[in-house]
Amino acid sequence: MQNNIYDTIIIGLGPAGLQAAIYTARANLKTAVFGKKDKSNLWKSHLLANYFGFDEDITGSDLLEKGLKQAQKFKTEIFEKEITSIKIGADLTFELSDDERNKYQAKTVIFATGMSFTASGIENEDDYVGKGVSYCVTCDGFFFKDKKIAVIGNENFAGETALELLTYSKDITILNNGETFNFSEGIKKQLEDNSIRFKETKKLKKFIGEKAEKVEDEEGTVYEFDGFFMALGTASASAFAKELGVQTEGQFIKIDREGKTNIPGIYAAGDCTGSYPQVSTAVGEGTAAAMSIIKKLKNVEVYSQYA
Amino acid sequence: MQNNIYDTIIIGLGPAGLQAAIYTARANLKTAVFGKKDKSNLWKSHLLANYFGFDEDITGSDLLEKGLKQAQKFKTEIFEKEITSIKIGADLTFELSDDERNKYQAKTVIFATGMSFTASGIENEDDYVGKGVSYCVTCDGFFFKDKKIAVIGNENFAGETALELLTYSKDITILNNGETFNFSEGIKKQLEDNSIRFKETKKLKKFIGEKAEKVEDEEGTVYEFDGFFMALGTASASAFAKELGVQTEGQFIKIDREGKTNIPGIYAAGDCTGSYPQVSTAVGEGTAAAMSIIKKLKNVEVYSQYA
Repeated sequence: MQNNIYDTIIIGLGPAGLQAAIYTARANLKTAVFGKKDKSNLWKSHLLANYFGFDEDITGSDLLEKGLKQAQKFKTEIFEKEITSIKIGADLTFELSDDERNKYQAKTVIFATGMSFTASGIENEDDYVGKGVSYCVTCDGFFFKDKKIAVIGNENFAGETALELLTYSKDITILNNGETFNFSEGIKKQLEDNSIRFKETKKLKKFIGEKAEKVEDEEGTVYEFDGFFMALGTASASAFAKELGVQTEGQFIKIDREGKTNIPGIYAAGDCTGSYPQVSTAVGEGTAAAMSIIKKLKNVEVYSQYA
Repeated sequence: MQNNIYDTIIIGLGPAGLQAAIYTARANLKTAVFGKKDKSNLWKSHLLANYFGFDEDITGSDLLEKGLKQAQKFKTEIFEKEITSIKIGADLTFELSDDERNKYQAKTVIFATGMSFTASGIENEDDYVGKGVSYCVTCDGFFFKDKKIAVIGNENFAGETALELLTYSKDITILNNGETFNFSEGIKKQLEDNSIRFKETKKLKKFIGEKAEKVEDEEGTVYEFDGFFMALGTASASAFAKELGVQTEGQFIKIDREGKTNIPGIYAAGDCTGSYPQVSTAVGEGTAAAMSIIKKLKNVEVYSQYA
């Protein structure tokens, strides 16, 4: 796998991620972008009038397709897959898994995951953080050794979380929080092979107990567990950040003007940093992160790529 | 003139300035952009391959023309003129003059002047800063009351500086520092009407004296004055910054993530802030400055302009 290590893996197939890729790939860095087009807010934009250089309105999906083609022209590898897990590995590399549990290694990572963030709707969730409610298997898994654990979520991110929890316990249930279970084939098979249970619940409303020992849904049904791991929707930047110790401000990744987070090798760009949700802002931040990576990996102070 | 006050005047006809205008004009703010297309670094770019969304290479001048058309679509007023002076006026407005000495008023100003910066070539210039060598008439003009003053420069910025110095002294000479005098008609006429002298020198090499009392050119000719005002090339952001008390880092304007300088109402974007000289970075910063102005003038905390 060492031969196949990426210089940078970019998580998020929107303008920030693709703009970053255009720079890193053009600088001959081995670059991959992961994500699904239709998850980008740009994809959903009807007509775009305010992005410099487009004097005729353009649809968000057309603009995204153009950016995608442009990134591929410079040999960016595009994976229309979800990244469900990132760990800091040996030799300061990062180890990533996709929604089929394929593994990838990268020297640097850029979060360009947009604003996807799924709230649980559980009204007292915040009161239970660190009291039986966790967000990070690496951080808190150990405290639930051989316990009865619930994962709250319904997609690959929840599946991956459940699979990672197997290191600590065999008694794991995924609660769908009123949504539909929706796993990729690879993850689904492994969940079944490892006897992870699936429980369809109504929308969950509140945790109960001094520590979270129970959760009650909107119809009053109560589910009892020793601990809960939140893994709603698609893995967001803030979910990864919790796992990796990346500083956040609320649900946003904290970066400097160079796109750097507090963790060496991890960068962020676009909506997930809390900047204006605009294409122009996203591409500016994508460029900043890419330039930082280029300078780091080429070990230069200044890098010019004027045109 | 009060009726004609601009919500924002943007100095610089490049991607940062035009992107900002697209946002402010589209938000129905009365917006003007000043500058000359061929002064933008973008104009000089042969082929651009790395700006998100352009999967086919585009020339810098084509891209700039598109941005210009786009800004005009939203009723941005474009003045292909140079701004030669900015003062903080009454009621927290700014008073600007162009190269024909026409006056404009604005509630806010964005510096998007690019990286134009002309070095004098005078080897010991830095040693004489504040010792007979000045950059700001408003700041230092008074110290040269009724003295014999030289302005070093050859374009409208030097002409404007000389005219402003008339408040303090009638004995003013412009030294062309080996360049060709090049004034607009309006400024030229006023210089002549006010008996300002023009002196063609070779390239100036060094100041002489404890304070700068003389300047010597490369052929050894010495010119004697009581004080020197530097006004080389086109008025750059750093020249305006000195005049207005805007914080700089070297020759760059210091801004925060919102595009704000330390002076309320003054913003900056693009190359003049020391960011990467890239279209993507410039448009990101242009948007940030515009958003800050929109929020300030509309007195709102959040402003959404998604498409």
